[in-house]
Order: sequence, then structure tokens, then C-alpha cells
Amino acid sequence: MRRVRLCLEYDGTNFAGFQKQTGTGLRTVQGVLEEALARLTGEGIKIVGAGRTDKGVHALGQVVHFDTCSSIPVERFPAALNGLLPPDLVVLSAALADTSFHARYGAVGKRYSYLILNSRRPTALWRSRCYQYPYSLDLTAMRLAVQFFHGEHDFQGFSATGSSAQSTVRRIFSFDIDEQGDWICFSVTADGFLYKMVRLMVGTLLEVGRGKMRPQQVKEILDRGERGEGGPALPPQGLYLVKVYYPGEEKGMFLDRVWPIS
Amino acid sequence: MRRVRLCLEYDGTNFAGFQKQTGTGLRTVQGVLEEALARLTGEGIKIVGAGRTDKGVHALGQVVHFDTCSSIPVERFPAALNGLLPPDLVVLSAALADTSFHARYGAVGKRYSYLILNSRRPTALWRSRCYQYPYSLDLTAMRLAVQFFHGEHDFQGFSATGSSAQSTVRRIFSFDIDEQGDWICFSVTADGFLYKMVRLMVGTLLEVGRGKMRPQQVKEILDRGERGEGGPALPPQGLYLVKVYYPGEEKGMFLDRVWPIS
Repeated sequence: MRRVRLCLEYDGTNFAGFQKQTGTGLRTVQGVLEEALARLTGEGIKIVGAGRTDKGVHALGQVVHFDTCSSIPVERFPAALNGLLPPDLVVLSAALADTSFHARYGAVGKRYSYLILNSRRPTALWRSRCYQYPYSLDLTAMRLAVQFFHGEHDFQGFSATGSSAQSTVRRIFSFDIDEQGDWICFSVTADGFLYKMVRLMVGTLLEVGRGKMRPQQVKEILDRGERGEGGPALPPQGLYLVKVYYPGEEKGMFLDRVWPIS
Repeated sequence: MRRVRLCLEYDGTNFAGFQKQTGTGLRTVQGVLEEALARLTGEGIKIVGAGRTDKGVHALGQVVHFDTCSSIPVERFPAALNGLLPPDLVVLSAALADTSFHARYGAVGKRYSYLILNSRRPTALWRSRCYQYPYSLDLTAMRLAVQFFHGEHDFQGFSATGSSAQSTVRRIFSFDIDEQGDWICFSVTADGFLYKMVRLMVGTLLEVGRGKMRPQQVKEILDRGERGEGGPALPPQGLYLVKVYYPGEEKGMFLDRVWPIS
């Protein structure tokens, strides 16, 4: 029995999320990948993913692990699986992992990006890869507000019901706002995320940018910890799981940004 | 009668190219746009496009013009048409044009980009927006070779049959190779392009980069003007019509790059 770890990229547009929903007939990342693994190995393999991305959310660097008795050399897994997988789900790399490795519980951090087209014009090429936001935004106010997210806080006020998390305390390591022309990308790295936390945080920053909330209100919502006081959760198509961090590992070899070239 | 000019963005993946192919039932950019214009104005409007992009080729800034007797204010055209168009074809802007304006014959230049993922790994998110090229590339040799394209040449050796062009002489204003990580973007601006010229030029540069051709051979093919001596025409999904230039106009207000943010 060996434990194998895969790094995945997927276009979330036509997936009903990461997690398998048995008996529903829904197309999920886990379901499609387990089906390919079954065809490849002949085994009934169950995978464990680092994060359960929602319907429509993309991944540039999702990590999963599974156990197998197959004798296929681990370096063959990417090409063999990519030959069986549909084009919107790709195995970027495979590695043997220690049997103590756990894609979900072993992760010490994750990075998500949320991409916004801040314009009244729609976009054809990016239509399922960003959220088009038509209102003018005050970047200075948003950058003031984002400072309150840094560090360790109880993020209950920026979570949606439906989370299975025991604690709602998380630590944010970095939260950057990059803009160029009418594109804005929010990138946040934390030790973990509550359900819809990124989409609620960015939704609140947009309310600040639009002048409907004061920057200080971010701190007030964190302090009070009441749900529903911030901005709305943004739609999934702008969200990307960029990277999962494990102890003692270098910066990844794969794209850790939403766009390929500066 | 007024002449209206539109700037279009489209995802070429599900279009059989720009040009209408009457009686074929094929979905083309021209066909879909003319249908939306007919619904909006009640007129049988024919559009003229700056460039006839092939099946699978994308556009960030295609320009078209048409004549209409409709009294719809020109600034209303983008939103009105976008409400009728499918999400993979978007009107970015509309403007009244002089009746002497011609989207095709009036253009003094066009810019195309060709995006390559230089890696053995496939990509899910960019699968229909780039060409995945698995072989190692010598960027220095490619940058030597690309110099030979600059300026005015007979590009017969870098054209495919099927072109209706009278002359095969074109002037290249700029030809840049940008790389970051395993992404390479070729961007070329010229006063015009022959059929498949960008895809044949970049295909030849890849042969140089891979060591199958010498940089100097680019010059030799230009000098001899024989077809079929260069590299193969690359597939369409990496190609973007980025911008069309008209006399006396400033740099465009829209994205003139394939990726949104550096």
C-alpha cells in the first residue's frame, strides 16, 4: 500500500464543486477523479482533498491524497490520469507521500485569489473566470479595511452556515489587493478558511470600496463575530484555490497566480 | 443612415471563425452578431470586420462597422446588443463613425498575440486559450530569429494558400517575446497579415527554439519566398486578435494584452 499525492488544476465552471455527492448524478471533481483512478488501477480508491471548493470555484493547485496497491510508478500517474480525465481537470504532478501525509489535516496554509473585472463592460474570454463589478471603487479605503483582516481573529462574522469547523479562529498571513487597469485581484493566504470566508471578506471590501461601509466596520464585524453584518458573499466564478502549503516545503513549482505573464 | 463602429471581444472556442458561411448552419461571429442586430433594429444589417479570424481564434479588440437607419442612440448599442448576444461574444464599445470609415480597408495596423504554455503538463483553465508545447526552447535563438521579421518583407514564405491578398508584402512594426515561468507570449504588430501568417511565424520560431532550424533560416525563407519551408502553422486556440489600429487614434482603452494583471 502506497500513499500518493496529486496536485490538480481545474476549471470549476462545469463541476458541482469538489466533493462527491453520491446518488445525485452531479459531476464533481472528486467523483470524476475517483472514476479515472478506478479505471487506471482497478481499485475502488477514495481521495482526500485539501479543500472542498464550491460549485464554479477554480483551482490552480488543489492537493489530494489517496492510498493504492497499484504498482504503477508514481511518475506515470499524471500522464496516465490526464489521458482518462476530461480536459477541465488536469493532474499537474504526482509524488509518493509518507503514510502520515494528509492532504486536508496536514495543510498549514492555503492561498486563494478572487479576480474582479471592475467595469460596466462584460467580458467574453473571462466570463466564467472573474466577477464583473460595475461600480467605482475607492482602492485607498479598501486597502485601509484589508489591514484589519491581518493576523489571528475569530472569523465567525465572515463565515456562512454550513461549515463543519470546530473553531472559527483563523490566522491571515497576507491579504493583497493588486490592480491593473480595470482588473483587481485579491489574494489571501491563511492557515485555513471558514465556509465562504474569502467570498464574504472580498464582498465586504467591495462595500467599503463603494462607500457603503467604513473601513473600520471590518474591525467591528470581526470583534462582534455576528454573521450577516458584512457585504454579500460574491459569486464563485471569480474564486481560485491557488496553493496549499505543507510543513517544510518550498514555494511550489506551479503557477501561484491567476494570470500567467506580467 | 448612420455608420456605427463596434469593438468586440470574443472567445473563439465555439465559433467556426469570424466570417459568415451562409447555408452551412455554422456558428460564426458575423452570423451571431448580424442576428442580434436584426433583432435589435429590425433591419437586415451586414457587418464588415477588420480581420477574419479563423475557427478557434480569440479577439480582445476586433472592430466591425455597419450602416443602420435605426434611431437607437449609439451609446445604447453595447448594453442592448450584449443583452441579445451569447456570453462568448461581447460588444465592448460603440461609436458613430464617418461614412468614410471602413473597419477593414481603413485599418493601418493590427496586433496579434500567440500564447504558449511551454510545459509537458496540460492546463485545465487555459486549455482553449493557449497552445501547450512540451519541448525545451532556446529563447536566445528565438530572439535572434525574430529580428529578421522586423520591417518590410515579402511574407509569401509565411503564408498559407487561401489568402485573397493582392500583395504579400507586409511591414512588421514590433514582434516581442515575453516569457514568465513556463508561459511565453509572442506579440506582433504589423500593417496587415497574410492568411495564417502569425501561426506560421510563431511555428517557425518554435522550430528555431527547439534547435531544428537556425535563426538565419528565417531570413532565408523571407528571401526565397517559398511556402512550406518554415515550421508548421500552430493551432488556433493560442491566437488572439488584440487590437486594430486606425489613423490618428490613440492607444485603445481596452485590454491590449492576453492576461489582465501583471
